[in-house]
Amino acid sequence: MREVSIIGIGQTDVGEHWERSLRDLAVDAIIAAIKDSHAERVDALYVGNMLSGELTAQEHLGTLVADWAGLGGAEAYKVEAADASGAAAVRLGYLAVASGVHDFVIACGVEKTTDADAETTNAAWSYGTDAEYEGNQGVTMPSMAGLLMRRYLHEFGVPHEDFAPFPVIAHANGANNPHAMYRSPVSAEVYARAGMVADPISMFDAAPMCDGAAAVLLCPAEMAKRLSAKPVRIRASAAATDRLAIHSRTDPLFLRAAYLSAQRAYMQAGVGPSELDLFEVHDAFSILAALSLEACGFAERGKATVLAKEGAFALHGRTPICTMGGLKARGHPIGASGVYQVVEVAQQLRGEAGANQIEAHLGMAQSLGGTGATAITHILEG
Amino acid sequence: MREVSIIGIGQTDVGEHWERSLRDLAVDAIIAAIKDSHAERVDALYVGNMLSGELTAQEHLGTLVADWAGLGGAEAYKVEAADASGAAAVRLGYLAVASGVHDFVIACGVEKTTDADAETTNAAWSYGTDAEYEGNQGVTMPSMAGLLMRRYLHEFGVPHEDFAPFPVIAHANGANNPHAMYRSPVSAEVYARAGMVADPISMFDAAPMCDGAAAVLLCPAEMAKRLSAKPVRIRASAAATDRLAIHSRTDPLFLRAAYLSAQRAYMQAGVGPSELDLFEVHDAFSILAALSLEACGFAERGKATVLAKEGAFALHGRTPICTMGGLKARGHPIGASGVYQVVEVAQQLRGEAGANQIEAHLGMAQSLGGTGATAITHILEG
Repeated sequence: MREVSIIGIGQTDVGEHWERSLRDLAVDAIIAAIKDSHAERVDALYVGNMLSGELTAQEHLGTLVADWAGLGGAEAYKVEAADASGAAAVRLGYLAVASGVHDFVIACGVEKTTDADAETTNAAWSYGTDAEYEGNQGVTMPSMAGLLMRRYLHEFGVPHEDFAPFPVIAHANGANNPHAMYRSPVSAEVYARAGMVADPISMFDAAPMCDGAAAVLLCPAEMAKRLSAKPVRIRASAAATDRLAIHSRTDPLFLRAAYLSAQRAYMQAGVGPSELDLFEVHDAFSILAALSLEACGFAERGKATVLAKEGAFALHGRTPICTMGGLKARGHPIGASGVYQVVEVAQQLRGEAGANQIEAHLGMAQSLGGTGATAITHILEG
Repeated sequence: MREVSIIGIGQTDVGEHWERSLRDLAVDAIIAAIKDSHAERVDALYVGNMLSGELTAQEHLGTLVADWAGLGGAEAYKVEAADASGAAAVRLGYLAVASGVHDFVIACGVEKTTDADAETTNAAWSYGTDAEYEGNQGVTMPSMAGLLMRRYLHEFGVPHEDFAPFPVIAHANGANNPHAMYRSPVSAEVYARAGMVADPISMFDAAPMCDGAAAVLLCPAEMAKRLSAKPVRIRASAAATDRLAIHSRTDPLFLRAAYLSAQRAYMQAGVGPSELDLFEVHDAFSILAALSLEACGFAERGKATVLAKEGAFALHGRTPICTMGGLKARGHPIGASGVYQVVEVAQQLRGEAGANQIEAHLGMAQSLGGTGATAITHILEG
């Protein structure tokens, strides 16, 4: 099995792209990633996307994007794992290079939600839950997250306002990311006043739906130095799943998939959470960020908000999270987010994070699908 | 890179499964594949599917199926490449084992079309074309195939009735396959009288939409003998893409992706078309079967129907095709068909093809996405 490095990164702004279509966004990110490297060719393309069929009547998306990006016959696939689709594309691209089959592989995440109205998009997003037992009963992603958060507040005796640090950190960091959807800081006071989306999930507990695309170009580590001034090594790539429906899980507040995939990643990289300089956490909802931090060993169970209040996850805290704004402030273009996270860790490791730059040699990204039934974790080294 | 073998196969009957849901079908095929082997565990699952979101409001399908099949935390993904989704699952499963990352991987293809009405399904199937330039203009898969066939008839001066051998062979073979949707032979006379679906595509030029699931269990070749009485070696796995919209292709009657992926497969296996004992061809439309046979070197351009008339592709001809009924008679559960093809080649190589058994040591399966913009080819050895 070969070691794999990232030699090119690309991303579009995140937001409402009325003037760019699904394919345009993907191609923009891919071209940027190719231009960022000295790759000789592209052998394969993995497109992470959840809702191209439902929202823009387009499947066969891998081949469409390969066609429009001019990849000339390269094999191409769409991969889907709900919100973790982008991370799945990175994972499968990694396997293609690690296997020795391909030298140059692009993993791209793309989502275009604004071609449909918000109601349609929200309904389609719920297809990441168990359709027969959850989705068809009328639940949405925010309402499922609301159930988890309500239980967390009850179980651990945490007041809702203690979740404020998550959006506060995300928005503070997003303010300095030129690609972020929201670039204005928010305060704990604003958080406390925010309207409810699905009680206790407030407007600031939920990441926004939007459009965007990000891409990474992968190649064997042994070639990377020649083809990039700042190659980033993939030290670990791991994934795991859990029961899909929340009611099937023994303990809904323990994200077993997040735990398993993090453990597998730690084992592969030979490091533990304390050695990581940053963690791009899946904060589609602030409760998911807290549960992910706990499952991955950054906080004891029920203690994520305590550590957050102490500043552990702020930009210059013990383990910075959401360093470029996270899903909350950068935006959550569903199937693209997992690639944005990896791109952002790479930006930090390459020293290209601008005003948000931290001292970082080792960073992790974890993407969750749905309410956490899929978890995909990557550890990168600069 | 490790050699990979198939140690378990499973399939459901193909047809209209009113009493089984999407997840049921997938789980049935997976359990059958597991029981067919002596595998110790399953490390990863790739689910090939095109339309679970559009037709049954279910994405996150990989994780759902892993959950319901009891795979206990195994990583899982849905992979989509239109009609070639199932073959894509086999291809990616192959890469996961070849890479050394996983020892036991299941590739499952599943589609459930009968939960929606035929109009909805037909519209959704067209999402495999280019939405902006083809699909949204009202084309359907049969109408696109009709354009290709009309051009073929004109270009090569072939009368429509010369395509009769394709459905005649498929139905003759399907009659002996207990899993096939259509088990009655058809004659050239019946073909000549058939009503038009999208002139010149008649009812017998088009494979039926339906439900079904098939699965293969893959492991490293070096372990295969211990875990299966009849392991089947994957001698080649290759994929390629073409321009998605037909109007973008220099020569619409040359399936460049089919050609490229077959050439890559021949190179990997070190064999040519004449050494293959059977070819499971993608006969979603008889015109696609002809174009695939020509692109893969089984017939010169414009000559596939001539060879077919001479009996070259019949069960005991030079290169038997559709030996278990093909997409036409076994049925075309869209994202599942690519896995059915691989399972059927394995049945022949294992000597389990019943009344349709031929003398076979080396067989090929090629699956096409949409109108041929994706082509995925596997060569298997018994």
